[in-house]
Amino acid sequence: MIQVGIIGAAGLSGQELLYWLADHPDAEVKVATSTKFQGQDIHQTFPFLPKQHLSFSGHDEELSDCDVVFLAIPNRASLENAPKLVEQGLRVIDLSGVYRIREIPVFEESYGLKHSSPELLKEAVFGLPEYFRSSIGSARLVANPGCYPTGTLLGILPFADLLEELDRPPIIDAKSGVSGAGGRVEDDATNYVEVNENFKAYKPFKHQHQPEITQYLEELSPFESKKLGEPVFTPYLLPLSRGILSGIYLHFRHRISESEVRKRFDAFAEENPFIQIMPEGQLPDLRSTVHSNRCAIGWASDSSGCQWLVQTSIDNLVKGASGQAIQNMNLMFGLQETCGLS
Amino acid sequence: MIQVGIIGAAGLSGQELLYWLADHPDAEVKVATSTKFQGQDIHQTFPFLPKQHLSFSGHDEELSDCDVVFLAIPNRASLENAPKLVEQGLRVIDLSGVYRIREIPVFEESYGLKHSSPELLKEAVFGLPEYFRSSIGSARLVANPGCYPTGTLLGILPFADLLEELDRPPIIDAKSGVSGAGGRVEDDATNYVEVNENFKAYKPFKHQHQPEITQYLEELSPFESKKLGEPVFTPYLLPLSRGILSGIYLHFRHRISESEVRKRFDAFAEENPFIQIMPEGQLPDLRSTVHSNRCAIGWASDSSGCQWLVQTSIDNLVKGASGQAIQNMNLMFGLQETCGLS
Amino acid sequence: MIQVGIIGAAGLSGQELLYWLADHPDAEVKVATSTKFQGQDIHQTFPFLPKQHLSFSGHDEELSDCDVVFLAIPNRASLENAPKLVEQGLRVIDLSGVYRIREIPVFEESYGLKHSSPELLKEAVFGLPEYFRSSIGSARLVANPGCYPTGTLLGILPFADLLEELDRPPIIDAKSGVSGAGGRVEDDATNYVEVNENFKAYKPFKHQHQPEITQYLEELSPFESKKLGEPVFTPYLLPLSRGILSGIYLHFRHRISESEVRKRFDAFAEENPFIQIMPEGQLPDLRSTVHSNRCAIGWASDSSGCQWLVQTSIDNLVKGASGQAIQNMNLMFGLQETCGLS
Amino acid sequence: MIQVGIIGAAGLSGQELLYWLADHPDAEVKVATSTKFQGQDIHQTFPFLPKQHLSFSGHDEELSDCDVVFLAIPNRASLENAPKLVEQGLRVIDLSGVYRIREIPVFEESYGLKHSSPELLKEAVFGLPEYFRSSIGSARLVANPGCYPTGTLLGILPFADLLEELDRPPIIDAKSGVSGAGGRVEDDATNYVEVNENFKAYKPFKHQHQPEITQYLEELSPFESKKLGEPVFTPYLLPLSRGILSGIYLHFRHRISESEVRKRFDAFAEENPFIQIMPEGQLPDLRSTVHSNRCAIGWASDSSGCQWLVQTSIDNLVKGASGQAIQNMNLMFGLQETCGLS
Repeated sequence: MIQVGIIGAAGLSGQELLYWLADHPDAEVKVATSTKFQGQDIHQTFPFLPKQHLSFSGHDEELSDCDVVFLAIPNRASLENAPKLVEQGLRVIDLSGVYRIREIPVFEESYGLKHSSPELLKEAVFGLPEYFRSSIGSARLVANPGCYPTGTLLGILPFADLLEELDRPPIIDAKSGVSGAGGRVEDDATNYVEVNENFKAYKPFKHQHQPEITQYLEELSPFESKKLGEPVFTPYLLPLSRGILSGIYLHFRHRISESEVRKRFDAFAEENPFIQIMPEGQLPDLRSTVHSNRCAIGWASDSSGCQWLVQTSIDNLVKGASGQAIQNMNLMFGLQETCGLS
Repeated sequence: MIQVGIIGAAGLSGQELLYWLADHPDAEVKVATSTKFQGQDIHQTFPFLPKQHLSFSGHDEELSDCDVVFLAIPNRASLENAPKLVEQGLRVIDLSGVYRIREIPVFEESYGLKHSSPELLKEAVFGLPEYFRSSIGSARLVANPGCYPTGTLLGILPFADLLEELDRPPIIDAKSGVSGAGGRVEDDATNYVEVNENFKAYKPFKHQHQPEITQYLEELSPFESKKLGEPVFTPYLLPLSRGILSGIYLHFRHRISESEVRKRFDAFAEENPFIQIMPEGQLPDLRSTVHSNRCAIGWASDSSGCQWLVQTSIDNLVKGASGQAIQNMNLMFGLQETCGLS
Repeated sequence: MIQVGIIGAAGLSGQELLYWLADHPDAEVKVATSTKFQGQDIHQTFPFLPKQHLSFSGHDEELSDCDVVFLAIPNRASLENAPKLVEQGLRVIDLSGVYRIREIPVFEESYGLKHSSPELLKEAVFGLPEYFRSSIGSARLVANPGCYPTGTLLGILPFADLLEELDRPPIIDAKSGVSGAGGRVEDDATNYVEVNENFKAYKPFKHQHQPEITQYLEELSPFESKKLGEPVFTPYLLPLSRGILSGIYLHFRHRISESEVRKRFDAFAEENPFIQIMPEGQLPDLRSTVHSNRCAIGWASDSSGCQWLVQTSIDNLVKGASGQAIQNMNLMFGLQETCGLS
Repeated sequence: MIQVGIIGAAGLSGQELLYWLADHPDAEVKVATSTKFQGQDIHQTFPFLPKQHLSFSGHDEELSDCDVVFLAIPNRASLENAPKLVEQGLRVIDLSGVYRIREIPVFEESYGLKHSSPELLKEAVFGLPEYFRSSIGSARLVANPGCYPTGTLLGILPFADLLEELDRPPIIDAKSGVSGAGGRVEDDATNYVEVNENFKAYKPFKHQHQPEITQYLEELSPFESKKLGEPVFTPYLLPLSRGILSGIYLHFRHRISESEVRKRFDAFAEENPFIQIMPEGQLPDLRSTVHSNRCAIGWASDSSGCQWLVQTSIDNLVKGASGQAIQNMNLMFGLQETCGLS
């Protein structure tokens, strides 16, 4: 039985970890910290979570009996905690953004934070199992991907070898429910009266997930932002609780056939248990994936066959955060990737 | 006092006409037809509408005492009714899609309908006051624009003279509340349980509003779809009742400065009372315009100044339908454009 | 492996049966009928349902290989189908309302339907496991309770022996999400634009679930509607998809202590795995039970200790319909009551 | 032209005052204070508000040129500000709860605040125009009623002379949108993810609006809580932005006829321009009154004619707060009651 610690277990990602791990056959939560709810029984605090017979601990709780620790805390706190835990010999899965961007100046500009552990950053493995499965298996520190990058990269990377055929940078128009977008926008932005019956974009061209998308596109394909220009990335806040629907516009210099595209995605789904390809002519909606670790993918093209629109749907708290984190844990401990996640 | 007839007064657009006209100082509703509610008092049927002391008539009600008739009925019914009414000497504002597209083969393919009054089609004036104000003044038949084309054209056309500087066709990613998208998607699509906590695109690359957008771009600017390719148009269904937020991606061959863009839009707003320009750095949300006849416009660009994202927000039932129809009526009868609409 | 047939598998209750049975360890769906989707693969039709490798059959599909059949069809259709299936030797769980009310005149007035199988009605067992567990075990026909009666009876019946201390009939003010209330209210009532940002009561004092509540109160307790008056029952439509929150006002002639009430409910929860008692001073919300088969119960009282308000929360599609139906199936086949439901 | 000051103009009630006063023919906002937005243009801060050519001032702004000041600030701040303003000779309309409850011990227990201006409390007039119209006309300080008491009292008081026929205290089950309930419940309670797809009661039997309801029932009718018991009051949080639907259960010792009830309410509506009576057999929904100053009233009874359910619908921010405050201002300055409110 894998012994699990969760730092920041009362936030939305933390609650989601508690939800899924309660039914995991090979892991159990030993420590779940929360400053705010310290000492309170988890099930009584959050009655929609299964009974755990576990109470929240304070943030200084001893973790040495754990095999793996999930960090579900703000960026700055992850920067501080991850190095200490790794030093202690614990394996760490960090859900914050601080170990994902490899170039320190880019990180520091995007996050407005100085990076205090550049060595560990070099070692961190990007926890997108569909592309880094084997490195994750042996990683000490997994940087769990951002929710937007997860939805975007899983829609673009199956075209990886074709990206040099693009004649324009991808345009990504991504719409997120409040649990995904909330923490990252300005004050009061997640108040009910602000969000309800409303819809808007925020931080176009300058969201901190944009360099994460660019970096892994360049790392995993011949895409060159220097030549073609940066991908365009516009995130929006939807009036619903969960889910990210990403629309990705790709324009190729040459016609690409429907059957070629389908072949690529079918192959991608065959190798990856959480990828779900939509039937012909159908685009995914958010209901397809909410409360699941799946990424549903569909597409359409114009009559020329050059302009494609790929759409992906994920639950930002599951495949976009805590579900993917557990998928990473499964890989780190040699379990089946889908264990406890279906 | 302008005497008004409304055919199809119990649908969403019809209700919205009743709502605004109840307070119009220079117009009064004389006839409001509804097959379903014939004989019922309007205020008792729809208690959220102001008291009108008027009941719904049947569709065969005599209209000869009216000065103007609004058609808020399905496409096929508008095709049949408009010619008869115009022949009777009545002025007509048609909210359906059947008198908007000038090329009959394009119309017939988009709407799956044969056009039975091509002569009247030639004469119809497109009711976008910001661009056709003077022709509307003397029109016998005004084709009130579609909700998506309204939001899109008002965001692109201020760049009209620059559209030959585009090096790619515009990409329009437009999200609509249920009252705008509803009638046009498949069966059951507007049931609460389908829409709530859900989000999805529909009819990408083949929505019937796409040729309407293309046609008026070409008519009002040097934009050539033959050279550059058709605009890309993707509509989505948002889980909210009202509003369309359109994101329009424009990529120019040369840098365009922020101040040049602002100058254009400020001039546009100065000439057009319902255009609202967002303060610097702000994008419009749907709340900005809901229940108003305004179109709010904001924008952002990348660091190169070549890639622009313009966003417009309208209430699909007001500026996207019934409010704009009343604005057209005001122009047709020599009233102030804003009369009864603020 | 129990072989299951579902008649009406594409409705909301049918989909919910498919959802839960997909993971049931001891049952598998052999036949799932739908007139509308006949021949279509279930997972492709409803991508949010797990893969079943099963297609919808027509309503005339052979069911003789099934061990149990769920009827998730309208009242009239259940009246016709249940007797035939029982005669064939199949065990039947009927989710409609036609085998719940014992007095035929009461039934006929409430449902506006003539009862065509009074013999079978006599035999039918009311499928509320918390009170009819042993009869369900051997039943040929289980009448699965209505969603409102489930939420109401589970909140009142733990006071069964005290109901003769009431000095007024219970007042039940029950609020339901659209999937529970929808099918039963007037035309168009579940259209998104009608429901969204709206709230209202419907059928006060005359909802067809009221006699169901009265009947089982009288059957299981000394409550006498003739002496005290009928319970007052007001249902409402909430702008959300799932869940019923029932507020039950009980006024006793004598003070009842908090500890006595808690003792009753704790004992009730101990004997019944799906009853969840709220911590002291907390009332249940809908999130506590959505997507679960639990019924969460909380309460409050005035300072006299005579006036009590009990609140129960259930998911109308799970404990209020399909989950409870599976719970009944488990009992009918000697399985653990919670099997496949947690 | 009445010169208006608004203290706390950026909160929800303050914004609503700005919205309605922008179109008021006989009043104009001269000062609108907000600590948070001091110095910012109102229309730029809240683009959904009409253009006002006015910026927010700090809380120390000079008000001596104003004729009337609205206090849209927290309880404690109203307690401090009201006496100073009244002393300055300004007329004051206070939207907080601190000048509504006449008995100081009751106030202090309900609000957890010491009352520092008992003299002014004695003088304050309860701003429910339907019952205190003439006193409001000459008041120096109007205590604008709470949103729940408004919805409740307008539904019960037309029965005032019959309340001694009640044989049980009224039970009030009142459901509020977030803008009404929000400010008064615990931390984080109005976060989108908490409220969306959720529903729950809060503070049953101990909400601070309960004594306000009791007091005015006793003051305006022969209702005696000492004899009959306190009214039961349960408030709930609905997942929508605006509106309160109050269900009021009244049980009389004798039969009351439908026509008698209708006569009472029709007479009430005749004397009071914002009272809207529902057609026979219809109950109000929230859409009937949202964004209006109306209170819509409907009812139903059981077959005995003793048990009645009255339902009222108001917009908590309009008739339940700022609209009613403007109605009070109209009365204080001899204007027509409906001025600027329709």
